[in-house]
Amino acid sequence: MISLPNTLLKLVESFKRLPGVGAKTAERLAYHMIESDELYNLEFSQNILRIKECLSVCDVCFFYIENESACTCCSDDRDNTKICVVQRAKDVISIDKAGYNGLYHVLGGVLSPLDQIGPEDLNISSLFSRISSEIQEIILATDTSLEGDATSIYLASQIEKDYDNIKISKLARGIPVGGQFEYIDEMTLMRAFDERKEV
Amino acid sequence: MISLPNTLLKLVESFKRLPGVGAKTAERLAYHMIESDELYNLEFSQNILRIKECLSVCDVCFFYIENESACTCCSDDRDNTKICVVQRAKDVISIDKAGYNGLYHVLGGVLSPLDQIGPEDLNISSLFSRISSEIQEIILATDTSLEGDATSIYLASQIEKDYDNIKISKLARGIPVGGQFEYIDEMTLMRAFDERKEV
Repeated sequence: MISLPNTLLKLVESFKRLPGVGAKTAERLAYHMIESDELYNLEFSQNILRIKECLSVCDVCFFYIENESACTCCSDDRDNTKICVVQRAKDVISIDKAGYNGLYHVLGGVLSPLDQIGPEDLNISSLFSRISSEIQEIILATDTSLEGDATSIYLASQIEKDYDNIKISKLARGIPVGGQFEYIDEMTLMRAFDERKEV
Repeated sequence: MISLPNTLLKLVESFKRLPGVGAKTAERLAYHMIESDELYNLEFSQNILRIKECLSVCDVCFFYIENESACTCCSDDRDNTKICVVQRAKDVISIDKAGYNGLYHVLGGVLSPLDQIGPEDLNISSLFSRISSEIQEIILATDTSLEGDATSIYLASQIEKDYDNIKISKLARGIPVGGQFEYIDEMTLMRAFDERKEV
C-alpha cells in the first residue's frame, strides 16, 4: 500500500483544521504548497507565526494593535463623544467603512449562558470605566442573533442605571438596501413592519 | 480611516493565493489564525516550511519521497512487470487504493502545445529508460481531457515503435459505478455506447 509522505499528511491535517475546509480541499491545498514557489511558502509560514508575535489588543478599545504601536481606533481625530460597542474586532472595519467616525469598544463576544459566557468574560467593565463626561452616546452594534440582542439589552440596562444623561442607541433593523421581498426572511420583514416609520 | 494591521493583511494575502480561496474566505481564515491556539499556528507554519525541505521526488518513478528515504512506489514487493503512467503524483494514491499493485511512472503533466509543454518537459525519456525486458505491460492512465488523451496517444505510438512485445493499455471509459443516466454527461454516454461490450 502506497501512502502519502508524512510531511504532506501533516500539512493536510493543518489545513483541515481551518474553518470550512474539508478533507478534499485540505489535500488540494497541501498539494498546491508542494508546487508553489519557495518564497511564497516561506512568507506564508512567517505570516502565520507573526500573527501571534506582532498582534495584540488595545487596552482601551480592544481593537488590534501591531508591534505595540498606538491604536488607530483611539486616535485623537475621531469623534470622542460616541462609543460604538461591537462583538468582534473585525466588525470595527465594516462599521468604519460605512462612515462612522466615533470611538469603538470591542466586547470580544456576547453573553451566552449555554456556553457559560457571562458579563465578566467580556470586555464590559472596561467599557464602563471608559464612560466619562465627554461621552454623549453609546451605540450598541452586536449581532442580530438572540445572544447579540440579549447582550445589547443587558448593556443598555446597565448603562441606564448609572448614567441617565447618555443616549443609548442600536442600529436600525429592516429591509437591506437593494433587498427584494422574495429573498428577505420572515423575521426581517416582520421587524421592518413593526418598526415602520411614518413618511 | 481604521485599517487592519499589516500583519493581518499580509496573512490575508497569503491565504488569498491558495486555489479556490477568495478575498472574504482569506479574511475569515486569517481571523481564525488570530483566535486559534499558538501551538497549532506554530505547527501549521512549520508544516508549510517542511513541505519544501523534506519532500523530493524519486529519480525513477517521480513519486514523492521523504527525507531521502526509499521510494514506496519502487519497492520490491510490487509487480514489476507493469508500469502505470499517471499525470500527477497524487493520481498514484487514487489508483493504488483501487488495488493496482504494479509500478508507477509520474509524467508531471501532459503535452500541451498551447502552454508550450512538449515531450521534453515531461518525464518521458526517463519512462523509456525504465523499459526493460521485465516489463510486459504499460498502462496509460492520464486524465480524460483532450491533452490527457493526446499524451496517451503520443506515448503509445512511441512505445509501439520501439517495443512490439509490450502490451499497451488504457483505462476503460464508460458509465461510472452507481452512475445514473440523468446525471451522466453526453460525452461519457456516447463513449459507453461506442465501447459497448457483448454479454
